[in-house]
Amino acid sequence: MSGYHFLFVPGPSNVPAAVQQAIHCPMEDHRNPTIPDLIMPINEDLKKILLTKTGRVVFFPSSGTGCWEAALQSTLNMGDKVLGASFGQFSMLWLDMCKRLGFEPITMEEEWGTGANPENYHKHLSADKNHEIKAVLVCQNETATGVRSDVKAIRKVLDDLNHPALLMVDGVSSVASYEFKMEEWGVDCVVSGSQKGFMLPAGLGILGVSQKAIEKMKESTYPTCYFDVVDMMAKLDGGYLPYTPPVNLLRGFRVAIDLILKEGIENIWKRHHRLAEGTRQAITNGWGLNLCAKEEKWYSDTVSAIVVPDGADAVPVISTAFHKYNLALGAGLAKVAGKVFRIGHLGDLNECMLFGAISGAEMAMIDNGIKVEPGSGAAAASKYWTENPGDK
Amino acid sequence: MSGYHFLFVPGPSNVPAAVQQAIHCPMEDHRNPTIPDLIMPINEDLKKILLTKTGRVVFFPSSGTGCWEAALQSTLNMGDKVLGASFGQFSMLWLDMCKRLGFEPITMEEEWGTGANPENYHKHLSADKNHEIKAVLVCQNETATGVRSDVKAIRKVLDDLNHPALLMVDGVSSVASYEFKMEEWGVDCVVSGSQKGFMLPAGLGILGVSQKAIEKMKESTYPTCYFDVVDMMAKLDGGYLPYTPPVNLLRGFRVAIDLILKEGIENIWKRHHRLAEGTRQAITNGWGLNLCAKEEKWYSDTVSAIVVPDGADAVPVISTAFHKYNLALGAGLAKVAGKVFRIGHLGDLNECMLFGAISGAEMAMIDNGIKVEPGSGAAAASKYWTENPGDK
Repeated sequence: MSGYHFLFVPGPSNVPAAVQQAIHCPMEDHRNPTIPDLIMPINEDLKKILLTKTGRVVFFPSSGTGCWEAALQSTLNMGDKVLGASFGQFSMLWLDMCKRLGFEPITMEEEWGTGANPENYHKHLSADKNHEIKAVLVCQNETATGVRSDVKAIRKVLDDLNHPALLMVDGVSSVASYEFKMEEWGVDCVVSGSQKGFMLPAGLGILGVSQKAIEKMKESTYPTCYFDVVDMMAKLDGGYLPYTPPVNLLRGFRVAIDLILKEGIENIWKRHHRLAEGTRQAITNGWGLNLCAKEEKWYSDTVSAIVVPDGADAVPVISTAFHKYNLALGAGLAKVAGKVFRIGHLGDLNECMLFGAISGAEMAMIDNGIKVEPGSGAAAASKYWTENPGDK
Repeated sequence: MSGYHFLFVPGPSNVPAAVQQAIHCPMEDHRNPTIPDLIMPINEDLKKILLTKTGRVVFFPSSGTGCWEAALQSTLNMGDKVLGASFGQFSMLWLDMCKRLGFEPITMEEEWGTGANPENYHKHLSADKNHEIKAVLVCQNETATGVRSDVKAIRKVLDDLNHPALLMVDGVSSVASYEFKMEEWGVDCVVSGSQKGFMLPAGLGILGVSQKAIEKMKESTYPTCYFDVVDMMAKLDGGYLPYTPPVNLLRGFRVAIDLILKEGIENIWKRHHRLAEGTRQAITNGWGLNLCAKEEKWYSDTVSAIVVPDGADAVPVISTAFHKYNLALGAGLAKVAGKVFRIGHLGDLNECMLFGAISGAEMAMIDNGIKVEPGSGAAAASKYWTENPGDK
């Protein structure tokens, strides 16, 4: 197919040219003496992105899913109770992993299109007088429904109850894109992945751990090897990994981190918000369609799930976009399959790219008989972006 | 700046990923024994793109401008008269080159926004009873004004008068993009460059020559060396160049030619026409602005020059697009500086890319106080593309 591939799934996100060029490097021995010069500054710089001073950040050759596992295995013991809300494919899968690994998840089902409900966390934690719940899981950004949860509010529940459980956050599709403050919010474990806000190909899981989490690791008897965080911290301190890392990806990681630090994490949050809001204007004011996220407080700045009108099917819209317009949109998963399509708006992104995604999705809807006014998406986004130039 | 750079000047055009990857190859000795396996099929395949069976196609490490020079030097003699129409920066420059090189150009000035006028060619050629005019120059696509000229009509003038002058065509920004038929149209020399329809970085000039042109080379006493077409043909026949070629660019050339032959030259013309027409709909029906090209018969399928309203200045529009929206638009040149901006729509291109260019240019106009309706460009383009799906 001619022209750029328009990649608008909510991750992998688009990789900047400078990062692609850095990854495209000669292969090298992962034990060569220059490796610590690469690794050790990354160890420090990641703290500036996750916003922790006292915590640690490690990374694994894995997807974000691997770091879900690393966080659980390294800090908990077999049979420990964990509490979490399920309101989409990914918040559900993390709790499912807890079960598969031998923990005892307490799952709070929330309506898809909403997020973590602090009141329900409060109910369970206040009833847990013996502190049998060892970890509280929150998915900050539910990629399946385009929902943001309020991590600070869950921290407040724990604080109000003086509950000692670890606070674990899935920040795979929020970290380095919209507001996340590990230290200030008292997050003990936060999981991310290279292929979202970090603007890399998939291949690196990123895990932030607090000193409290590190203390808990000493008490853990859970059998770990690949995802042993204690091992990983010790090896990274020496400038290497315990096993073969993808060094070319780490060369790209270096450049991606430089780009993030140069733009500034708060500027990145602002850019994502402005681009997300323009996209939402296209969806709601332009097309007159609904977001899957039920209320404004749930709106995600990295992905919008768009509900197609009653009787319409999102599947052929996605297929038309891909095959006719070289545009990859995100599919609806599980409960919302066929009911929504998703536009990812995270990572290395600008207005012109989003115009392609918005107007391309619009043509794919029109081609499939969904009544939206041609140009209405671009009109609403354009109006928002010209009236709200941000720091530009 | 974040996100893709939207490159919408009328060349260099966007380079497909497969071509970029091919260019990004290890350096190699340009005299190594595998080079003829690269060069000799290119010699043959270029004929399929320029549509000549009896002619030859050569290429130089140069820009298209270099092949303007090669065509003139190799076939003419010092002091020879050449006839050409000037109606924009590039048609003007080719005639200027004729003067600088010691030929005697007869320049027919045409209004910018129109193209080569067959009646004026007829006037001069019919008066040239002694056949002192040795070459007739036509710029098929005037990139400065977005104007296409009718090469067939000029051929007909020569045929009707039985005039023996060589027909030379500047096809830099038309060949491999819209209709050009070297053999059928009786073109003796056609000049192109790698950075337009051929979807490569700049660096290769491409020159097609007819058997009649090759015969004329025998009579030429013009001093040539670098741009000696006879030398180049002989060396290319052996699978090498007379001097150092950029072999990495030739590796990319191979892949670009493969992409062109796979899509099919007539399909490429159709795709360019459909994308160009959507862009024109955005400009005229959407924005209510005028093209620099005065009439439909002059419309170029590779570049549109858009006239900003009276009193407005195109320069800050182009600057805003570049600095605020990461979008490179073409500037107005010479006579139309400040009066027009240009959108190139050639090469490796699709609808979503053009939506970025159209809506980005629209925002840049709005930012500079030019009254266009937000979204009106995308609306008109979208309507055209969904109602005219082509072969999709």
